[in-house]
Amino acid sequence: MKTNPGRFFEDYALGEVIAHAVPRTIGAGERALYHALYPARGAVHSSDAFARSVGLAASPLDDLIAFHTVFGKTVPDISLNAVANLGYAEGRWLAPVWPGDTLRSISEVIGLKETSSGATGVVWVRTRGVNQHGVTVLDYVRWVMVQKRRREVVVPVQVPTLAAVVDPGTLVVPPGLDFRRYDFALAGEPHRLGDYQVGEVIDHVDAVTIEEAEHMLATRLWQNTSKVHFDIGQREDGRRLIYGGHVISLARALSFNGLANAPFMVALNAGAHVSPCFAGDTLRAWSEVLDRAETAAP
Amino acid sequence: MKTNPGRFFEDYALGEVIAHAVPRTIGAGERALYHALYPARGAVHSSDAFARSVGLAASPLDDLIAFHTVFGKTVPDISLNAVANLGYAEGRWLAPVWPGDTLRSISEVIGLKETSSGATGVVWVRTRGVNQHGVTVLDYVRWVMVQKRRREVVVPVQVPTLAAVVDPGTLVVPPGLDFRRYDFALAGEPHRLGDYQVGEVIDHVDAVTIEEAEHMLATRLWQNTSKVHFDIGQREDGRRLIYGGHVISLARALSFNGLANAPFMVALNAGAHVSPCFAGDTLRAWSEVLDRAETAAP
Amino acid sequence: MKTNPGRFFEDYALGEVIAHAVPRTIGAGERALYHALYPARGAVHSSDAFARSVGLAASPLDDLIAFHTVFGKTVPDISLNAVANLGYAEGRWLAPVWPGDTLRSISEVIGLKETSSGATGVVWVRTRGVNQHGVTVLDYVRWVMVQKRRREVVVPVQVPTLAAVVDPGTLVVPPGLDFRRYDFALAGEPHRLGDYQVGEVIDHVDAVTIEEAEHMLATRLWQNTSKVHFDIGQREDGRRLIYGGHVISLARALSFNGLANAPFMVALNAGAHVSPCFAGDTLRAWSEVLDRAETAAP
Repeated sequence: MKTNPGRFFEDYALGEVIAHAVPRTIGAGERALYHALYPARGAVHSSDAFARSVGLAASPLDDLIAFHTVFGKTVPDISLNAVANLGYAEGRWLAPVWPGDTLRSISEVIGLKETSSGATGVVWVRTRGVNQHGVTVLDYVRWVMVQKRRREVVVPVQVPTLAAVVDPGTLVVPPGLDFRRYDFALAGEPHRLGDYQVGEVIDHVDAVTIEEAEHMLATRLWQNTSKVHFDIGQREDGRRLIYGGHVISLARALSFNGLANAPFMVALNAGAHVSPCFAGDTLRAWSEVLDRAETAAP
Repeated sequence: MKTNPGRFFEDYALGEVIAHAVPRTIGAGERALYHALYPARGAVHSSDAFARSVGLAASPLDDLIAFHTVFGKTVPDISLNAVANLGYAEGRWLAPVWPGDTLRSISEVIGLKETSSGATGVVWVRTRGVNQHGVTVLDYVRWVMVQKRRREVVVPVQVPTLAAVVDPGTLVVPPGLDFRRYDFALAGEPHRLGDYQVGEVIDHVDAVTIEEAEHMLATRLWQNTSKVHFDIGQREDGRRLIYGGHVISLARALSFNGLANAPFMVALNAGAHVSPCFAGDTLRAWSEVLDRAETAAP
Repeated sequence: MKTNPGRFFEDYALGEVIAHAVPRTIGAGERALYHALYPARGAVHSSDAFARSVGLAASPLDDLIAFHTVFGKTVPDISLNAVANLGYAEGRWLAPVWPGDTLRSISEVIGLKETSSGATGVVWVRTRGVNQHGVTVLDYVRWVMVQKRRREVVVPVQVPTLAAVVDPGTLVVPPGLDFRRYDFALAGEPHRLGDYQVGEVIDHVDAVTIEEAEHMLATRLWQNTSKVHFDIGQREDGRRLIYGGHVISLARALSFNGLANAPFMVALNAGAHVSPCFAGDTLRAWSEVLDRAETAAP
């Protein structure tokens, strides 16, 4: 068979490193599409001039463009036969991605555990996104429930220990970043770090009703090949499941209204796709401030 | 509250200058999306080679990309609580916008008038789009009907005097423009200025049936945050109102068929959104020649 | 009349050369949109770094971006009044198209034949796509059935002789191409030329359910003005016919799964749009290996 059947649970080995296929150069086109697909308004990622005013060479690509591109490459090897995308942890953005950069993805299998049904298993992978200079731009752990090919195969159990929260001391700030000339009026809101209180909940107010064409354009853009997003024949109800990352980007973009001065995603402590999302759904977003930490950037 | 509630009628003061948030760098991606969203075929904005043949350094971005980008930035400050977008006047395009340029918007409140109901008022603003060099690329007056927060507040009336027509003597032609080598065959039509008669009506023949995904992609691309375009919960009928500028761009692009040799929008004499537009509507366009004027360009 | 009524059968003369209007510069934006519209994953067209590893200066634009752009320009002159787009033959891609290139199209009428009904005729054209340096990047024959304006006009019959298959000896490989460092893991599949057997049939497995917004975005992007793709008033059933090239691109992109190491389209032996395609249809693709040939590229 010439086509990729995807991997099943027993095809993964602990410690195995998978170099995912199809490197991707991303740039001005992906940036424009990101703005068309999501109501993103962060000034640093919208304007070269603004990015320069805070010490960067130009406007980097949105942190979630990097995430989706890196994630998409893992799908043919990790989640083509996934029953569910269970969670994320220990995510860190380690270097800006600039227009013209080429990203590829590498995953290491760090955990395996059969489910009690015996028909499926959970696979944990630590995925790195690497640019054309070999620099890791993004690093995260994901775990998925994958079908077994044969029920009787026994796979040794190994559950990784994951940090509940990314240690703020390990966060990486883009080199050169300097907020001393940050223009709050141009950025859209006056709120500073000190204005956010632990426990504060922000209703981001805006909402978006999602269309089929939008989530498919987005999901293809990230070269995510999961059939369930594109083919009405994949689910019994004939609906196309929306890529969870599309929802993440919508929520992040909606959060501008109240978090306009939080330009960078520096870590992903945890994440789960708790309910499926379909075209016609109307999405809202809210944030809760769980903690605060200072960085060394001026 | 961290989020932007938008301004109400009594929040505007005559002469107030509002620097709108979120500067935006636009380029090759926005150009491609413009061609995907609208059936634009003007040769100057389609081809670097053609643009050079008429004396420009490269193909500038479509004049309406500039308009929508500048307009979109004003929405959070001007029309978030607008009941209606009433009209435009005195619009002029003053400098080409090139790929890589960064635009921001500045509005001055030039008129205020309470409506007879006492519940709303009309606000007139003169908006300028400014590039990264501080050059004004676009200038227009817009007026909107905005809700009052409290009915009893009295605001002094000031209605601006607006020109019915932009004086042709004040129109600005892109520097260097030279039509002596203009290739009519490559541009798509043989018609010259002298072929258009005052009073002539042109039916532009083509039609487009509009989809939800298209107008939302467009409206987001211009970072227009008006809720009514995206959220089915905003109107009692559950329909998403299409951004009026989407209709303007569709009409302008359709007008290529009959006006192929009118590459630049140099002024906006007047404009009104006379009926709402919704997905499923099929749009046609026609033009009437109201007047003609010569420019100094060869 | 200022607008283009399109040509009728008797408006074509054998040997006539038609220089089609509206040259187009294509680049980073069109590349990104291509990836959003089609599940394209070929490494050479996805990554500058990968393209360099096989001897190219950068990642060229997808061969079908060139085809659609060249094709779209011919529509106003060739198929605006077409009843049917009957077939393709003798297609060859002759030079890579790089971001920033400007393409225009030139067609020569090489055949004319009235149909037995007397109401229509078939027109054969050989179309060339030419870049800003005057280099032909693409060459193909297309024939369409076009309406006659007046039934009584008699047009001399001339049916061109077309090759059933493009001679492999005339195929053009991009200059500098060198597969000695080709990374099969990064490309996505291990299969080499020798792994494909004549007669082998590959089911490409994946499927895509098509949306109205997607095919219209694509068709507009190629500046294809055929009314039937955009206007629900054009067909009695109120459906918008999907541009056949949209289907070609979907099929080509789906074929990655099984043909990942076939990066270039070098010829189009034949092609026909055998059934109409509409939004809501779910598209699958399969390939049959008809023959194999070697090239001089290392």
